[in-house]
Amino acid sequence: NPLHEECLLHELIELIGSLLYYKHSGVMQLGKTIQLITKPDGGIIKHLVKLRESKPYRERTSRCVVQSDLRLLKELVYHSAFHPDHESESDLAAQHTIPKKIAFYSNGDQDEIQNLVVQLPKTHQFVCLTHEGFLKKVTGLQNIDPNNCFVVEVAKPPERPILMPEEISEKIAEGKQEQGPDYRPNFRQDPPPSFVVVNQLQDPGNVGNLLRCCVGFGFKHVFFVNGSADGFNEKVLRASRGALLLRDQEKRAVLSYECGDLERLFTIAKGYNMPIYVSDTEGISPPLDTISNTEASEGKKIVVMNNEASGISENDREQLQHAQAKFVHIPMSPYCKSLNVASAAAVMLYSLRDNVVTKE
Amino acid sequence: NPLHEECLLHELIELIGSLLYYKHSGVMQLGKTIQLITKPDGGIIKHLVKLRESKPYRERTSRCVVQSDLRLLKELVYHSAFHPDHESESDLAAQHTIPKKIAFYSNGDQDEIQNLVVQLPKTHQFVCLTHEGFLKKVTGLQNIDPNNCFVVEVAKPPERPILMPEEISEKIAEGKQEQGPDYRPNFRQDPPPSFVVVNQLQDPGNVGNLLRCCVGFGFKHVFFVNGSADGFNEKVLRASRGALLLRDQEKRAVLSYECGDLERLFTIAKGYNMPIYVSDTEGISPPLDTISNTEASEGKKIVVMNNEASGISENDREQLQHAQAKFVHIPMSPYCKSLNVASAAAVMLYSLRDNVVTKE
Repeated sequence: NPLHEECLLHELIELIGSLLYYKHSGVMQLGKTIQLITKPDGGIIKHLVKLRESKPYRERTSRCVVQSDLRLLKELVYHSAFHPDHESESDLAAQHTIPKKIAFYSNGDQDEIQNLVVQLPKTHQFVCLTHEGFLKKVTGLQNIDPNNCFVVEVAKPPERPILMPEEISEKIAEGKQEQGPDYRPNFRQDPPPSFVVVNQLQDPGNVGNLLRCCVGFGFKHVFFVNGSADGFNEKVLRASRGALLLRDQEKRAVLSYECGDLERLFTIAKGYNMPIYVSDTEGISPPLDTISNTEASEGKKIVVMNNEASGISENDREQLQHAQAKFVHIPMSPYCKSLNVASAAAVMLYSLRDNVVTKE
Repeated sequence: NPLHEECLLHELIELIGSLLYYKHSGVMQLGKTIQLITKPDGGIIKHLVKLRESKPYRERTSRCVVQSDLRLLKELVYHSAFHPDHESESDLAAQHTIPKKIAFYSNGDQDEIQNLVVQLPKTHQFVCLTHEGFLKKVTGLQNIDPNNCFVVEVAKPPERPILMPEEISEKIAEGKQEQGPDYRPNFRQDPPPSFVVVNQLQDPGNVGNLLRCCVGFGFKHVFFVNGSADGFNEKVLRASRGALLLRDQEKRAVLSYECGDLERLFTIAKGYNMPIYVSDTEGISPPLDTISNTEASEGKKIVVMNNEASGISENDREQLQHAQAKFVHIPMSPYCKSLNVASAAAVMLYSLRDNVVTKE
């Protein structure tokens, strides 16, 4: 596309000129798009670190940061909350006047910066960190590949909770609608898909891997029981490869989420007549393979994964039993007491994914 | 058992006496069983740290260390290489004169030490670290629960490679035998079980989780392709919950292992007529569910898991194709490029575990 190439060339000429001119003056504004950080100036670095470390700050600004390599960055660009097509959500709390940022390391070398910037989405402001130490500070990591490490600030998608039919009616009576010019991603009208419950999982790596499995096996919603790890924790985002940020063709979250307590979960399950399957390490529960291959496992369902160290608490077990949840265990050798919860989730979600019977 | 209780009481009295007497004298020998480390003395701490950090040192001493909680420790005591019943392997290189150690933290409080020691196996020498900092040094971890953290030194089980029939004949002709008074765990006579190939996996957490899945799903042997993470790396041992250290009732490794190159793997596969299944992220491979539920997947098999970042190298792919390996992919949503390798391994091994068809 010659027009595109011409634009690009124009941009590059502008960029080179700006760099030559501003190279030694600290924090600089290059054209409208690149900020070069050559001194440990507090502002931007502090902002990105705070987004990474502080859940209240993420909630206040409706932003979060993902540390990614170029591959993930491209996946996010292609499918995510910061795809240019998806920036028109005028009522998103995330639409602040502060532009979102992509921070990366470069020693200020023009060719390098150019090569990087042409690959990055135009929706963001670029922040070029000219010292590896700044990148370590922003990522909080000691071992990074500075040439393939990006810190990307994105809008934190709001909760998109499953609503009961009467709650949907109320919203509509109030004049709200889910899509159109006033697209509100936090109001869902569709009946719930099969979904996963993160019950008191604490380890962000495990939660991230679980979310990645949710996306992989077509579970389109995740219910975080209050007290579980935050889905926008930096490690969760990294391990999940940004699962909670991806959008589908209809601009909806590939994996929507909500937070709540078990009571609310039971209301949903009962209201929509969805069976609840609970991953259990107790051998007295029926084995997964007797359940995943029966008619009973067809249709929409809820899968509950529990705390990695302590499993299901006695209180939760009673509540779940009372709600007629079905406890299942993954059949295993007696030499193995349990799997890592992310591995167990992979097996559970693979086995219980929608249409597992008809596919086989 | 009153006799057992009397012995225990006797031991405790001895212990209390020793403690009262030796409390402030640095490194001490309490009776024959407890060493109290009250000063940053180099010897034992250095030894344990070296075992943790240095593969050559592990190989030279045929020892390794596992950092564990009390639950894992009990599992190891019950099923492992350091169960008293298993200490009679006279020809194990591991049988040095230096006793193996269990190091734990305690502030020197007698009740605490007693409560701990009565729960620990008698086969080891106890090393009581009286400063939390020593435990951090020995484990290399900043966040530990000092009251539930044990560093256990165990014999590093030797390789127990799969041999070809003619190699077995040679060993027997040389007068060697697998079991009996000269039990040699590094010589196996039985035909190979279904096993797993760790092909260039680098992340110790992933390798550990994969090994845990091997045990869980009845894969009894693991073939480390040269260049993969070391199976006795501290993080591998921790993530695998000591998978490579567990023994079955016949005192054999629950999960035996060997290291080698792909050529050797092909020799085994061809010699024993075992199909090779390779986990692939390319969608053009047949999906796992069309394979795991057919007759073809019955019988002993080999499952290859590849590097977490780069997958299968082109060279390996060619070699594997040439050896008529079957490439399979886990069917997944287009929004998910791949799963974490430990999650993928869980799904692969669960689906391809022995007798999967007859069980279902």
